[in-house]
Amino acid sequence: MANDVATPLRMYGNWRSAAAFRVRIALNLKGLPVEETFIDLDAGDQHKPEFRKINPQGAVPALFDGGGPPLTQSLAILDYLEDAYPAVPLLPAEPRARARARSLAQVVACDTHPLYVPRVRNYLMEAYGLPKERMMEFVRHVFSTGLKTLETRLSTEAGTGRFCQGDAVSHADLCLVSLWVGTGIFGVETAPYPTVARIAEDCLALEAFARAHPLCQPGAPQG
Amino acid sequence: MANDVATPLRMYGNWRSAAAFRVRIALNLKGLPVEETFIDLDAGDQHKPEFRKINPQGAVPALFDGGGPPLTQSLAILDYLEDAYPAVPLLPAEPRARARARSLAQVVACDTHPLYVPRVRNYLMEAYGLPKERMMEFVRHVFSTGLKTLETRLSTEAGTGRFCQGDAVSHADLCLVSLWVGTGIFGVETAPYPTVARIAEDCLALEAFARAHPLCQPGAPQG
Repeated sequence: MANDVATPLRMYGNWRSAAAFRVRIALNLKGLPVEETFIDLDAGDQHKPEFRKINPQGAVPALFDGGGPPLTQSLAILDYLEDAYPAVPLLPAEPRARARARSLAQVVACDTHPLYVPRVRNYLMEAYGLPKERMMEFVRHVFSTGLKTLETRLSTEAGTGRFCQGDAVSHADLCLVSLWVGTGIFGVETAPYPTVARIAEDCLALEAFARAHPLCQPGAPQG
Repeated sequence: MANDVATPLRMYGNWRSAAAFRVRIALNLKGLPVEETFIDLDAGDQHKPEFRKINPQGAVPALFDGGGPPLTQSLAILDYLEDAYPAVPLLPAEPRARARARSLAQVVACDTHPLYVPRVRNYLMEAYGLPKERMMEFVRHVFSTGLKTLETRLSTEAGTGRFCQGDAVSHADLCLVSLWVGTGIFGVETAPYPTVARIAEDCLALEAFARAHPLCQPGAPQG
């Protein structure tokens, strides 16, 4: 990708990776240009030796900031960007508000998203001989469980504002949106989650989110 | 639990919760006494309305620090303790080292542990009619995948020292140990992971880890 300014940031990602999406939003919000190389997950490029050298886990995203080893795991990358590029903060300053933003982010990034990634879906189909449609019941169950927790918390906890934590975008919103866009892809019912929907749609109206959207990335299906 | 000093910290946990274990180690290392209430997960007490009011997700740990709402999600709690009680740091100061410690922690806390918790194990058995032994193949696959990533990274990356990140205990070690103690419970082969084993055993020799061990908590099986 051509950037008019020199950038030290390079990322290995994929159009449909929810984890790469989160990091892409943060980079946009912070005004940090990045050169993204798309790893073809369908072709299994994440398992090739040259990528395993970058991330032995065989997962995207992996971020390079100048020299030094790659940064991996999306939440760790988001925190690194807070430490290294604090001018546009994406976490509140107050410890309890920070903890709440992180906790909401982790409902998605720990307890929901890792359960429906391709490596789990493939395992269920291959090891247990489940047809795709039956495996998808698990995926939709996982989505619904995560969305229900988010809806209950966001609609009852005092910390919720325009965004998940107060009136400023935080890691919680990045994670929420990365889950939300998956509901369309996986056919998950969204009507029971109006507070999640309100925040997700408010976020996606922002240029930094819209430009990071999976369907706007190279390799995404057209139309 | 009797403490000689007044403590503002109260935690809802369970002897066998890997997430509560991580938080308990951090509290011990930081010298913070805590009153822990054990939620009977086998009896389903985490789903009772009175606990759902504390954590709508129905999961432990939940930490109270004086007044204010409960803190949830183990990694968010660990970060809160860094913010609120920084005297004994459990993350390195340098951003790249912090990012690596967090990334290793998240290999466990995002990509491994949430896949084998009771709510997933029960779903697989109930929705797909899998007998326990077949379901356990998934659990052992998840453990092995996580342990293999940790072993590869810890044995090849320059950041590894006496502990996961350099020579000081960090969140990475708390998470690594919380996974390691599960290998015995779930019958996971450990021989292929000598670097993980070395660090886990070094940690478990420390009083703060040993005292936090699941089998030393009320409700744990004897002997």
